[in-house]
Amino acid sequence: MKTLYIIKIGGKLVTDKKKLASLLDDFSSIKAPKILVHGGGNLITEVSAQLGNATEMVSGRRVTDFKTMNVVNMVSGRLNKYIVAQLQKRLCNAVGLSGADGKSILSKKRKATEIDYGFVGDIVSVETGFITTLLNKGYTPVFCPITMSDDGVLLNTNADTIASQLAITLSKTHTVHLKYCMDKPGVLSNIENNDSIISMLSFDTYETLVNTQAISQGMLPKLHQSFSALLNGVKSVSIGNFTLLKPSTKHTKLSL
Amino acid sequence: MKTLYIIKIGGKLVTDKKKLASLLDDFSSIKAPKILVHGGGNLITEVSAQLGNATEMVSGRRVTDFKTMNVVNMVSGRLNKYIVAQLQKRLCNAVGLSGADGKSILSKKRKATEIDYGFVGDIVSVETGFITTLLNKGYTPVFCPITMSDDGVLLNTNADTIASQLAITLSKTHTVHLKYCMDKPGVLSNIENNDSIISMLSFDTYETLVNTQAISQGMLPKLHQSFSALLNGVKSVSIGNFTLLKPSTKHTKLSL
Repeated sequence: MKTLYIIKIGGKLVTDKKKLASLLDDFSSIKAPKILVHGGGNLITEVSAQLGNATEMVSGRRVTDFKTMNVVNMVSGRLNKYIVAQLQKRLCNAVGLSGADGKSILSKKRKATEIDYGFVGDIVSVETGFITTLLNKGYTPVFCPITMSDDGVLLNTNADTIASQLAITLSKTHTVHLKYCMDKPGVLSNIENNDSIISMLSFDTYETLVNTQAISQGMLPKLHQSFSALLNGVKSVSIGNFTLLKPSTKHTKLSL
Repeated sequence: MKTLYIIKIGGKLVTDKKKLASLLDDFSSIKAPKILVHGGGNLITEVSAQLGNATEMVSGRRVTDFKTMNVVNMVSGRLNKYIVAQLQKRLCNAVGLSGADGKSILSKKRKATEIDYGFVGDIVSVETGFITTLLNKGYTPVFCPITMSDDGVLLNTNADTIASQLAITLSKTHTVHLKYCMDKPGVLSNIENNDSIISMLSFDTYETLVNTQAISQGMLPKLHQSFSALLNGVKSVSIGNFTLLKPSTKHTKLSL
């Protein structure tokens, strides 16, 4: 099977021009087929504030009302176009996408229970036809954190989940390596100390750490997605910062 | 040669949900390969105002400084995603694009003379490989009014020009019909009277009307692009409002 790299970039590095440029240099030099997935960074909160919309967060997740969804669409469009143009400058033939394009990622609006998250989508299916067409022709898909319900409603979607769902679905036809680039240099045994990177995180250790509440709230969904990917056919999952794609960078590698 | 329809939508109809929905119904029901090109409507001015950026216009053209270009990227991304999702809802397999995607439309930053228009691009070339790949696989490209310089700078670009340049380049391999949908129902002999549609506008009449200054300032570049398209291999050019795609709608057809 062909090798495929799926790189997710999130956190503040998405809007940090220097770190982003360094990461895109490394990404562009990957010879194998590759996909980039990016989050919205702090820009959604920032533009919302500029427009006078308050940002409501419940348990670390954004409540996406209609106005906020407009901002999500705007910010995602802007970041996506910027990243695509920066990749083109580096001779990487990128194509910017949301899940609506080519109907590539369908989701379902999350049902309101005690909390109504608004226009938030949980992924239902990844349609690989369109993505594979692009990859086979040498294009590099760049996904923003938006998917679509089957009745054409755009939905704000967690970029970590987009990356892992793409990885799982494409692992049927490719040997997939999934890499999460974030602000911290890896999974830390002591969140205050950036040198305390756990270089190999096994599923058993992960479960222990979850039970002892030693993992930060923000890392939990990422690790859940990561192990789900490994359990469902993805060849490798690594977590690090913007230097993750450089050889011999310290990072966290997950194992079953 | 295969038939290809290129439809450009602009003016207020881009942000008028009812008119847009009606137009997208008609667009989706075109069986032949097709491309949609859209402008930014009034939304760029509106969002700029909300963000506290003044909009500077010189001779009917926007001056696109760095902040305004961010708004152009945001608004174009939002409108483009909305249109793509609305087309998907209508079972039209749309793919949203800027000229940066697949390096499909390259432009050059307009040189500052007496006026510096800022981040405004004049089209240099249309790369048909990527667009043709999409069309041949049954996808419908939807272009927003952004192109890219060959060193990766995103540039605000007139959507009428994007449509005509796509039409001219693709007419080498397709029989192209180019249709401009705008707020007015066609080219009017009396701008105050929407019933005064010139149903057939010849190149000679156009030149006479230009010389007698009988054509509104806003229509001039559109007509220039339209005749340029006809002179360079495009099969037909029509101009009308949001009902242009319906059979027997009154409109202006151009002829050499």
